Amino acid sequence: MPRILFAATEDDWHDYRHCLPRALQEKGIQAELVPVHEGMDPALVDYIVYAPAGPLQDFSPYTKARAVLSLWAGVEKIVGNASLTQPLCRMVDHGLERGMVEWVLGHVMAHHLGIGFFAAHQDGVWRNGHAAPLASDRKVTVLGLGALGQACAKMLAQVGFNVIGWSRSPKEIERITCLSGDAGLKEALIEAEMLVTLLPQTPQTTNLLDAAHLGLLPEGAVILNPGRGTVLVDEALLAALDAGEIGHAVLDVFRVEPLPATHPFWAHPRVTVTPHIAAATRPETASRVIAENIASAEAGQPLLHLVDRTRGY
Amino acid sequence: MPRILFAATEDDWHDYRHCLPRALQEKGIQAELVPVHEGMDPALVDYIVYAPAGPLQDFSPYTKARAVLSLWAGVEKIVGNASLTQPLCRMVDHGLERGMVEWVLGHVMAHHLGIGFFAAHQDGVWRNGHAAPLASDRKVTVLGLGALGQACAKMLAQVGFNVIGWSRSPKEIERITCLSGDAGLKEALIEAEMLVTLLPQTPQTTNLLDAAHLGLLPEGAVILNPGRGTVLVDEALLAALDAGEIGHAVLDVFRVEPLPATHPFWAHPRVTVTPHIAAATRPETASRVIAENIASAEAGQPLLHLVDRTRGY
Repeated sequence: MPRILFAATEDDWHDYRHCLPRALQEKGIQAELVPVHEGMDPALVDYIVYAPAGPLQDFSPYTKARAVLSLWAGVEKIVGNASLTQPLCRMVDHGLERGMVEWVLGHVMAHHLGIGFFAAHQDGVWRNGHAAPLASDRKVTVLGLGALGQACAKMLAQVGFNVIGWSRSPKEIERITCLSGDAGLKEALIEAEMLVTLLPQTPQTTNLLDAAHLGLLPEGAVILNPGRGTVLVDEALLAALDAGEIGHAVLDVFRVEPLPATHPFWAHPRVTVTPHIAAATRPETASRVIAENIASAEAGQPLLHLVDRTRGY
Repeated sequence: MPRILFAATEDDWHDYRHCLPRALQEKGIQAELVPVHEGMDPALVDYIVYAPAGPLQDFSPYTKARAVLSLWAGVEKIVGNASLTQPLCRMVDHGLERGMVEWVLGHVMAHHLGIGFFAAHQDGVWRNGHAAPLASDRKVTVLGLGALGQACAKMLAQVGFNVIGWSRSPKEIERITCLSGDAGLKEALIEAEMLVTLLPQTPQTTNLLDAAHLGLLPEGAVILNPGRGTVLVDEALLAALDAGEIGHAVLDVFRVEPLPATHPFWAHPRVTVTPHIAAATRPETASRVIAENIASAEAGQPLLHLVDRTRGY
């Protein structure tokens, strides 16, 4: 019987204590599941279910652990932990992916239609002017073509947008214009009426969207960042917004979270802050992903969603 | 050579005078095309391209006219004209349909995600609470399953919503729960967390959404009306909004347009007015539809998008 340590916060345990056992049972796994605050001998642990906010920082006593299974899609808070020698798996949660697709689609559509403009002008003046462009006349660039980036790019293409996708290494995706490398990044930014950033947090992506790269965007471009806060240089973004070079930014992730009440993003008229809600891990679906991975490992199959430690994601 | 009378406003002529001849030429039609303000002998006219705001009201002198081709999707302003004995064709414009799909999708998504709530609370308080429901946990009802209603229903289903579609007569559409008739309407309203009305304007649909029918909606339901203003009883909607029974209404069409500046919809905190922009006919695509229909008739084929005068659409 495998022993599973739930190494996250007590709040997390509250969310998972029913659905994780249920998911394990559905996969036919008889397991001993213990939350970290109740204690389990590290030497006996077979699997660690992990979230960064919990107390577990030193993985070295877990000599027998076959895998660390992250509850989070982003692993940048653990991947640099030198004590972690066990295989690390990311969360690839269909519920999380759907949530991300919906957040991106909703905010792209809101700016595409100018919903905020009409909401702010309920003043009795009938501004019907000319028809807004159709999605087929808009270019949206998605930076990052991992599971989340691809899902968002595909949905935007399905709605009718012209979608450019950019990734570090070349990819091919139906209906998406895929660009890669440094030259591809330039082109992807120059074309982006709307820019969605879904890059993982790595040394290469940190500060990627600095003044020089932001300066490539068309005047009035809208930026949506539901990915990682470190991708954007806050000061460069604020300067570009102040200068009117960038039309609006919708930001869901930040270098410090919760975003401090004094941060200029909150008060900026061209910034919409959402509180890291784009891709919430949903315990029901995430539990199934954890159970599936443990079942796979127990059956002698490879671990799923394994992190490449050299790339950092 | 067919003679075509362009019977709309001078503004319309300005929009169509280049793209309509181009579309006719692309279909291989050599035609004489004259705007109504320049005059053409009614007895010589083969086709009438029509918009309600123009000067043409009496169709009886057009004894030879083979069809009246509406530039508008809605034909309620002409269908009751007793002098109209010629076949009447509606505009079924792909550009118009895409615009409608995008308007509906955008406003459904905005309410689904609570975008307005976050936009209104940029106050430094990090409200990340629990994850919003996924689209798959939301029920959206679409009233009216004509070309526009079906296109919207299908797009919402593609995004993941549970979509109920209602029409007068029974229909079957993949991924949509199709209801019909009076009993079906009740069920469709009872389930509708969001309600999209895309019914044609007929005696049967006028005042359909009165206090009794609005009272069937779940508490806090959101209404989107990009269809026809006469479907909703304004006073009943305002009362339901005031009582908090209905959460919000996004209205694009009204009994009187432009909506008078004194109308209570403008000032109501739970109403968003948009100025009849959901489905703008786009001259480029509409011209192709007109040309295609004339080409069809000239080739001895049936007219497309023919209006059933007994049903009124």
